[in-house]
Amino acid sequence: MKLNCDLGESFGSWQMGLDVAVMPHIDMANIACGFHAGDADVMAHTLNLAKQYGVAIGAHPSYPDLQGFGRRSMALSHQEIVNCIHYQIAALDGMARSNGLSLSYVKPHGALYNDMMSKPAVFAAVLDAVTGYYQPLKLMILATTQQQHYRELAAAKGVTLLFEAFADRRYTDAGTLALRSQAGAVLHEEEMLAQVRQLIQHGTVTTESGNTLALSADTLCVHGDNKIAVAQIEKIRTLLA
Amino acid sequence: MKLNCDLGESFGSWQMGLDVAVMPHIDMANIACGFHAGDADVMAHTLNLAKQYGVAIGAHPSYPDLQGFGRRSMALSHQEIVNCIHYQIAALDGMARSNGLSLSYVKPHGALYNDMMSKPAVFAAVLDAVTGYYQPLKLMILATTQQQHYRELAAAKGVTLLFEAFADRRYTDAGTLALRSQAGAVLHEEEMLAQVRQLIQHGTVTTESGNTLALSADTLCVHGDNKIAVAQIEKIRTLLA
Amino acid sequence: MKLNCDLGESFGSWQMGLDVAVMPHIDMANIACGFHAGDADVMAHTLNLAKQYGVAIGAHPSYPDLQGFGRRSMALSHQEIVNCIHYQIAALDGMARSNGLSLSYVKPHGALYNDMMSKPAVFAAVLDAVTGYYQPLKLMILATTQQQHYRELAAAKGVTLLFEAFADRRYTDAGTLALRSQAGAVLHEEEMLAQVRQLIQHGTVTTESGNTLALSADTLCVHGDNKIAVAQIEKIRTLLA
Amino acid sequence: MKLNCDLGESFGSWQMGLDVAVMPHIDMANIACGFHAGDADVMAHTLNLAKQYGVAIGAHPSYPDLQGFGRRSMALSHQEIVNCIHYQIAALDGMARSNGLSLSYVKPHGALYNDMMSKPAVFAAVLDAVTGYYQPLKLMILATTQQQHYRELAAAKGVTLLFEAFADRRYTDAGTLALRSQAGAVLHEEEMLAQVRQLIQHGTVTTESGNTLALSADTLCVHGDNKIAVAQIEKIRTLLA
Repeated sequence: MKLNCDLGESFGSWQMGLDVAVMPHIDMANIACGFHAGDADVMAHTLNLAKQYGVAIGAHPSYPDLQGFGRRSMALSHQEIVNCIHYQIAALDGMARSNGLSLSYVKPHGALYNDMMSKPAVFAAVLDAVTGYYQPLKLMILATTQQQHYRELAAAKGVTLLFEAFADRRYTDAGTLALRSQAGAVLHEEEMLAQVRQLIQHGTVTTESGNTLALSADTLCVHGDNKIAVAQIEKIRTLLA
Repeated sequence: MKLNCDLGESFGSWQMGLDVAVMPHIDMANIACGFHAGDADVMAHTLNLAKQYGVAIGAHPSYPDLQGFGRRSMALSHQEIVNCIHYQIAALDGMARSNGLSLSYVKPHGALYNDMMSKPAVFAAVLDAVTGYYQPLKLMILATTQQQHYRELAAAKGVTLLFEAFADRRYTDAGTLALRSQAGAVLHEEEMLAQVRQLIQHGTVTTESGNTLALSADTLCVHGDNKIAVAQIEKIRTLLA
Repeated sequence: MKLNCDLGESFGSWQMGLDVAVMPHIDMANIACGFHAGDADVMAHTLNLAKQYGVAIGAHPSYPDLQGFGRRSMALSHQEIVNCIHYQIAALDGMARSNGLSLSYVKPHGALYNDMMSKPAVFAAVLDAVTGYYQPLKLMILATTQQQHYRELAAAKGVTLLFEAFADRRYTDAGTLALRSQAGAVLHEEEMLAQVRQLIQHGTVTTESGNTLALSADTLCVHGDNKIAVAQIEKIRTLLA
Repeated sequence: MKLNCDLGESFGSWQMGLDVAVMPHIDMANIACGFHAGDADVMAHTLNLAKQYGVAIGAHPSYPDLQGFGRRSMALSHQEIVNCIHYQIAALDGMARSNGLSLSYVKPHGALYNDMMSKPAVFAAVLDAVTGYYQPLKLMILATTQQQHYRELAAAKGVTLLFEAFADRRYTDAGTLALRSQAGAVLHEEEMLAQVRQLIQHGTVTTESGNTLALSADTLCVHGDNKIAVAQIEKIRTLLA
């Protein structure tokens, strides 16, 4: 199971995330493309880091909302979603190639990610964006109990999915993430490591109500916001070894 | 001699330029990439038009200044210029490839174009951007009396230049364009057609002081702002036939 | 009945609306504040025009979405709506005062306007923004069959409402505007003038199904997009005389 | 001598500066207005903090360059500078009044500040902006050996100047700040405290070449970037007591 992390989320003079500390410990870097975070300079820097550590790179496109960090849903049309994803993938793609790297996947960010998982029309637009891009790219989405359904929708468009699970988030019985605003939604370190162990060994998670849910994850999403988070990535990495 | 024109300079709900009317009459479309004009939707539309008429496409990158339409000089560092050009070229490149098209050149826009012609450090940064892009692209600059000098600088970086002349602008003895604010700087239609004829037949222009200047132009820059401008493109096209 | 019109919707080099032609014919100018259109230069120009013709001015705040012209709903929190409206009102207010003018009302734009009419939480946030502004301002909303309900909500916050009707839009039986995408939703000139006459003389509109609906409007919204629209404003003005 | 500090320079999800820790120790808060940093939410938060500690507030307007943090010179026209400063002052002014506060001064930011001190045309535009604002505001500029000259220019427009000195920056013999890129340009703590003492007791600074320069400062600029900087503010505050 690969570790993926959102990176390159600084902007201009504003720093976010301990990218230098995180990069050595992950397998896949989801790189912001300028619409919620990241600018051309930050992207160039992040691509350098990914290259140095041989980390696979993916585009992390967003709704165009820098102030809201792409976390506010926006009512874009189907074609607007396709075009704005193409623009962002392309910007990162050409910069990556110019650095001797190659994009391998796309993971939508924030509200676009959530809308993709909750609104079939948005998922269809994201699929059209990925399949319409000139180069084959995988699409990373949330591993839920509906994986087979998503896999079929994607296959019909010729897109291969990557399913991600969250190390540090409590799951609902529906196989979605408990809302951050809910008590217990974000796991403590011991709970998190237990959840990772269970995912690796059994391909399951224990939900908030105590049920066991089968989740087939290709990758685990980890965070590099601060030193504690980075230390946790190292512990998760040990479990995967 | 090819005709090139700045296109795709609408933004969101704002229209600019008669792109649909112009595209059939030109050879090369300089397409805005989102920093001074153009957004992902406008770019997709412009690429469709270029494809329909078999027009060659170039990236038209700018300083990041939407409100100023890229016409205000900005003090970017060497690396900021390289990265911001890469980002813009790349965004258009990936969208073009996804539409079955291929970029062939870069023409900086507005203040970036002017700075490139007047400040050696900016020209060096633009050259580094073009040569550092993963795919060979030509760089379009102004045909002046310094063409040989620019050609050597570009050759040292492995970049091929395209020189453009202006159909409708009066030249100074120094081989630069007379400032728009000056009386007579923008040519009337008859003067313009005479200047084009002279460029085609003799490879020269007559300057504001009446001198004859040799200018070797690969392409003529024309404008599609309004119906009169479009009609003039058709007349210039006739001269080229 | 006053005529109000959205103005100052140019941005940078992009022109929109025939503001110079419209201003002499209207009573109230809803001026864009930079988030969906308008920039500091456009705002200064529009304020000059309003001053010249003695037109009352209102702030026309929007979601922060320049590319989408504020027409795409965005999921802002209550406090984000309040703050982003305050910022926009304030920017126009201070510029107006510096030109010897005084703001008298607020009319939300585009998706913010629609959300305000369809989502009670958004209406509550807009009310909080208006009542929380240091200077008393009226709030312009759509005249519907729910006018009394809105009036009470506003009164509880100490806000006076202005109700606007649309000259050129067909009404549904529910008292809302028929969707633009629907056939017949936008009235032809004769229908429009008949609707205005009916509003003035009887305080009613005839809905798409032929029913008669009472609408008490303080102001009519007119448009200045093109020469035909401006000519229609003059005809409406004659009816009001 | 008052202490002033640039505050409210976070943006969206990006934090910058220890505003909560700094505010209790300063007299004047220069608040970003959205063009280089700060957004409506950050501004509302910063105004709350200033109110809580009774700190005087000033607008800190910038060139429109969020990615460059307002540190890159931009070639704006006279009127563009006036309008963009008015917009920013006004946005903060109206939000401040709505919070029961009142703006008292303007301090341009970054490249606009530097251009104002080095280009007479930019200083003239800034003066026109301040004097043209509907409410009297002081203008904060750098205390140099040219103070009398600036004072006269400002007086001719009816503007009162506030002169600031820098606690932690080495001065040149010309009375300007040594470039940050130069060795020794940023003072160590002991040097900084000595410079402050000298400013307070003698109204002079010792330049990089060892000369003594008279500088009449109304206020000292301090920084709140990190814990060390905040601790230094407290030490400077002790010297002022």
